[in-house]
Amino acid sequence: MSGNTFGTLFTVTTFGESHGPAIGCVIDGCPPGMALSEADIQFDLDRRKPGTSRHVTQRQEPDTVEILSGVYEGKTTGTPIALLIRNQDQRSKDYSNIAESFRPGHADYTYWHKYGIRDPRGGGRSSARLTAPVVGAAAIAKKWLQQQYGTIFRGYMSQLGELVVPFEDWSHVTENPFFAANASMIPQLESYMDALRKSGDSCGARIEVVADNVPVGLGQPIYDKLDADIAYALMGINAVKGVEIGAGFASVAQKGTEHGDELTPEGFASNNAGGVLGGISTGQSITASIAIKPTSSIHTPRHSIDKAGNPIMVETHGRHDPCVGIRATPIAEAMLALVLMDHALRHRAQCGDVSVSTPKIRAQRP
Amino acid sequence: MSGNTFGTLFTVTTFGESHGPAIGCVIDGCPPGMALSEADIQFDLDRRKPGTSRHVTQRQEPDTVEILSGVYEGKTTGTPIALLIRNQDQRSKDYSNIAESFRPGHADYTYWHKYGIRDPRGGGRSSARLTAPVVGAAAIAKKWLQQQYGTIFRGYMSQLGELVVPFEDWSHVTENPFFAANASMIPQLESYMDALRKSGDSCGARIEVVADNVPVGLGQPIYDKLDADIAYALMGINAVKGVEIGAGFASVAQKGTEHGDELTPEGFASNNAGGVLGGISTGQSITASIAIKPTSSIHTPRHSIDKAGNPIMVETHGRHDPCVGIRATPIAEAMLALVLMDHALRHRAQCGDVSVSTPKIRAQRP
Amino acid sequence: MSGNTFGTLFTVTTFGESHGPAIGCVIDGCPPGMALSEADIQFDLDRRKPGTSRHVTQRQEPDTVEILSGVYEGKTTGTPIALLIRNQDQRSKDYSNIAESFRPGHADYTYWHKYGIRDPRGGGRSSARLTAPVVGAAAIAKKWLQQQYGTIFRGYMSQLGELVVPFEDWSHVTENPFFAANASMIPQLESYMDALRKSGDSCGARIEVVADNVPVGLGQPIYDKLDADIAYALMGINAVKGVEIGAGFASVAQKGTEHGDELTPEGFASNNAGGVLGGISTGQSITASIAIKPTSSIHTPRHSIDKAGNPIMVETHGRHDPCVGIRATPIAEAMLALVLMDHALRHRAQCGDVSVSTPKIRAQRP
Amino acid sequence: MSGNTFGTLFTVTTFGESHGPAIGCVIDGCPPGMALSEADIQFDLDRRKPGTSRHVTQRQEPDTVEILSGVYEGKTTGTPIALLIRNQDQRSKDYSNIAESFRPGHADYTYWHKYGIRDPRGGGRSSARLTAPVVGAAAIAKKWLQQQYGTIFRGYMSQLGELVVPFEDWSHVTENPFFAANASMIPQLESYMDALRKSGDSCGARIEVVADNVPVGLGQPIYDKLDADIAYALMGINAVKGVEIGAGFASVAQKGTEHGDELTPEGFASNNAGGVLGGISTGQSITASIAIKPTSSIHTPRHSIDKAGNPIMVETHGRHDPCVGIRATPIAEAMLALVLMDHALRHRAQCGDVSVSTPKIRAQRP
Repeated sequence: MSGNTFGTLFTVTTFGESHGPAIGCVIDGCPPGMALSEADIQFDLDRRKPGTSRHVTQRQEPDTVEILSGVYEGKTTGTPIALLIRNQDQRSKDYSNIAESFRPGHADYTYWHKYGIRDPRGGGRSSARLTAPVVGAAAIAKKWLQQQYGTIFRGYMSQLGELVVPFEDWSHVTENPFFAANASMIPQLESYMDALRKSGDSCGARIEVVADNVPVGLGQPIYDKLDADIAYALMGINAVKGVEIGAGFASVAQKGTEHGDELTPEGFASNNAGGVLGGISTGQSITASIAIKPTSSIHTPRHSIDKAGNPIMVETHGRHDPCVGIRATPIAEAMLALVLMDHALRHRAQCGDVSVSTPKIRAQRP
Repeated sequence: MSGNTFGTLFTVTTFGESHGPAIGCVIDGCPPGMALSEADIQFDLDRRKPGTSRHVTQRQEPDTVEILSGVYEGKTTGTPIALLIRNQDQRSKDYSNIAESFRPGHADYTYWHKYGIRDPRGGGRSSARLTAPVVGAAAIAKKWLQQQYGTIFRGYMSQLGELVVPFEDWSHVTENPFFAANASMIPQLESYMDALRKSGDSCGARIEVVADNVPVGLGQPIYDKLDADIAYALMGINAVKGVEIGAGFASVAQKGTEHGDELTPEGFASNNAGGVLGGISTGQSITASIAIKPTSSIHTPRHSIDKAGNPIMVETHGRHDPCVGIRATPIAEAMLALVLMDHALRHRAQCGDVSVSTPKIRAQRP
Repeated sequence: MSGNTFGTLFTVTTFGESHGPAIGCVIDGCPPGMALSEADIQFDLDRRKPGTSRHVTQRQEPDTVEILSGVYEGKTTGTPIALLIRNQDQRSKDYSNIAESFRPGHADYTYWHKYGIRDPRGGGRSSARLTAPVVGAAAIAKKWLQQQYGTIFRGYMSQLGELVVPFEDWSHVTENPFFAANASMIPQLESYMDALRKSGDSCGARIEVVADNVPVGLGQPIYDKLDADIAYALMGINAVKGVEIGAGFASVAQKGTEHGDELTPEGFASNNAGGVLGGISTGQSITASIAIKPTSSIHTPRHSIDKAGNPIMVETHGRHDPCVGIRATPIAEAMLALVLMDHALRHRAQCGDVSVSTPKIRAQRP
Repeated sequence: MSGNTFGTLFTVTTFGESHGPAIGCVIDGCPPGMALSEADIQFDLDRRKPGTSRHVTQRQEPDTVEILSGVYEGKTTGTPIALLIRNQDQRSKDYSNIAESFRPGHADYTYWHKYGIRDPRGGGRSSARLTAPVVGAAAIAKKWLQQQYGTIFRGYMSQLGELVVPFEDWSHVTENPFFAANASMIPQLESYMDALRKSGDSCGARIEVVADNVPVGLGQPIYDKLDADIAYALMGINAVKGVEIGAGFASVAQKGTEHGDELTPEGFASNNAGGVLGGISTGQSITASIAIKPTSSIHTPRHSIDKAGNPIMVETHGRHDPCVGIRATPIAEAMLALVLMDHALRHRAQCGDVSVSTPKIRAQRP
């Protein structure tokens, strides 16, 4: 496979480039009979779309979705659902000056070496714009999982550059452009971003994502473990360099007596596992963290080479997110939802309809 | 798919349980005409096998491999290669006392919920013993990649519980039972483990794994990115809770001017990328880190429940690794090798034979 | 998988229904760097499109294709190629009268039982209209195979209802609406179809399809044999009930001395094999035949039941092909091309670039 | 994929060569909790094994199966089931004289061209001996389908060379070595085979295979149609050159009024469909026919070439089936069972547990 299909039973095949005529996807395997309209999908697309604050790219894309197939009289038919989003705000000429050189930390170098051809317009296929179709597809998965098991997906930014953003309350997340679960730090985050932009530099971010009310038993050991597939899904998001499940890297220094979540008749007493044991969901909340690297397209000159291998200095202008992590929260939720959806179908293929036996949980993270 | 096959073009399908009659695998997609014998495979199996020091499980398994198919007159034929390892040192009775209860942090809870049935003998299918067949399969991948591109795989333990183990030199790794790249800390690591065992507890570990001489262009964006598949492979190893590529979580606090590896006519000037940009290999060394949680089977009593949901205290006896991370280095190398092998074949499917154009690298990690 | 993707390395994922807003597909795995434009694809779409003679459905669809992605400056980039065809001539109301009943021999019965929902508009997803996207995708495969190996694909109708249509010459095929390789029988075929339409009935057809200049070595035994995949591809075409490779059912009564194609230094002396031995291409021409059943939507009343299980009489009006086999020749060629394309990539994944060693052939069929 | 795995959710990965140390398979995706022992599997292996009459190869293989994994305390665990069959009666030296030449109609030519290497011992991987593991795997599928839906699989030989063998009664099939559903013709079939053997020649055969009590709704349009997958499975059996579903090639000359099976409140009135409409099972019996070519290894000299391309005469000695079709009936049943099993799991992945609504059938074939 050439890598443009996500999932095995609930599959999402995406297409498109940042500045081509359109982007979109084909979703195969959606159970029939679920009510579905464009509005169900547009909501999450709007959470991800560019141009919504001064801290993200100023490209203006309404990201209006059209359902081309798979829905009849307002219900899914069980056949492929195709989503189409026309690109509106292409500016290909922005990229002509960089078509012959490589940006440090950018995929332009590897695409050119792999394919012997390169679409320089906004990163072409490697652009983070291509997360829009999966966010659309995941909205369908989320709706089904919510109806079937009550599963819900949430996320927040827990660090922006050097600034740790402590979790205060879920209610804050929708009230600021950073997806921060913290109201008091917003002015500080805004100043940080304003200074960063002025300096012509970029920064990284850390995102936490959580799924609550996950049925026990999802995951296919021993290679398609639920956490392995989550790691695959999250590491595959543009610019991600690290993934943790539950206690993550902190578990290295934990003792067994500390790490293993004790069980009680009322549920698990803690959640170091992040909701997965042996690659199978426990019924605890699924918790994962990702590290997002700083954007590679920056206004500061850096050493590089051109296609002929000659040394050059390169700096990037045009419209770029100074921190791609700012818009990453809905994307991370989407990827997690797609993994759970796929595993829900895989589980019932082998074991029959999932009996919803979600153990009570005493302690969750955060 | 039910999750017991690793890879898409170079596939490894494993079978077996910790205390069943045998474990093994079927490898499909191996290029024909490569010299191969059991000795090629046994070497890596011996690096992984139990019972080689007092710091790991005392189960005695020679892990002798038999090639059942796919090799004729000492050469691979292009047809499936089946590997068989008979289990020798089963002690099923060790587990009868835990068959009705669940260990905190152990897969026994999730297997029972998923399948409605559970093999309590040494964890059954969820045992780390099942890493042996993939280590065997990866020996074949390593040999092919080495011959084709000169690619080599190495790894070491960089942290044991709270003890950070600084990298000194690769030569030390084979000289101690911890796979530490550091000679002077060995006495400290041995005392740490002796104290841990006495206390009836367990600890985690951190492992670094590196592939050198990787051709440019491997990886299939945008979902089967090389780093996404590495994350999938490494997170799928028993007890792993976190995966980093290159700078990993440190990249959150890096600036773009710091993170993006500059290019020069002599090669990359640094390796924050960990050898992957846009999901495609750059020709830099691939570098990854994993966090391994402490073993869940410990001699200390913990709160849990039995199958009926009643509260109980559970403690585990029998033979267990007090730190599964100690034997994890060859396993991590193996998983990385399987990912690169699969992507080498995927690349040449679409783009033809890989032209080995490995850019010179000035700075590598470590 | 839910069955809407064809192929494993060169994959075609289609979407759409007969009377929805659009049909199309996403092609993944196309090698980069090949010149490609809409004109390359339109040619084959025009050979398949409806309304081109009085013997086929009178639905007017220009089937104009738009390439949405995967091509930059006239060349394939190696990323997904999305094709979009807007439906133009929908008449959903034609189908309201049949929405509650089942046509003998039609998929409406099984779709309703499988999905619990049914799109009655022109057969919805089960319509032969959905062969358009694969014909489009196959045009890309044909171009690549032609450039790489000189492979060409041809087909013709060898039987229409009871009328056997002997092969005379390839040149005739493009000169009549039946794809008959025979000029003299055209008046007879036209009268036959005119009488059939008047009678309100339908008939079957037999199609032969041939690939010349196929490299030796394509096919992946022992399950993805080349002939097994051809059978899968051809039997999957709407209304096909039988598939033969080479001598087909005639081989039952052949002796071994008669069937096995002798080899000479100048090539094979005959082609009973149909170009495949042991599931791998021999370099002989690939030859296959298919049987197409008569259309199920006919103007003659037949016994059936409604959704409630009550007996009814059903007859179908609206626009239908009285013999779906008439337009099947380009579809069969397309499916054969997709199979060979997929296997060409699979072969080079495992065995490296195909060395084009096509043995000389003395005798071909027809 | 390299073609050695059958199925998508219920997968069978086979390994082994005709004269290697062992053959076997790994079955993944079997639902947990089903009682299973070696005896369940041995029954079908014994129906297929060689040496049971003078009309088949005299190789003596008990084909004793060992279950290596996936069963605990007599029940399937949901983890991979590995089956091992040791080869007992290898005679590699029989083949030394043919290692440098190619038999007309044999896979030795294509294997050598594809892989650049060839195992001449009894056809190596291309041997019909490799049908044993799938017959074993299918025994598990049959048991599950029988318990779940009451589905049963049967087959018979309907033609041997030129001799048509009319169906009389299922009871005869087990009473003769030909799987003929006809008692009176047995002496004629025995004389035919005796004469054939004496002449040093071989012949083809035609096999019919039927599945009764198939639930409605199995099949994944539009590419993994149930009949497409059946065609793939049956054409993939060694020596098969043609596949028909239901009326097959006879449907070419049928009218729509004749072919389409009318529905009545009591069930379908006929079965031209062979149990599949639009790629989805109807609840009618699934009926399929296959054409098997004559064995290529014969005692009669034929024109061929050696590896260097020089003309030679080749004739084969050693132990060969003079009609591979004689043992093909249990193999065809097995392949059909594997297809239905896979689709049963695929269906419930997307649509939930199959509601067993098998419409009553008035007319079945034969």
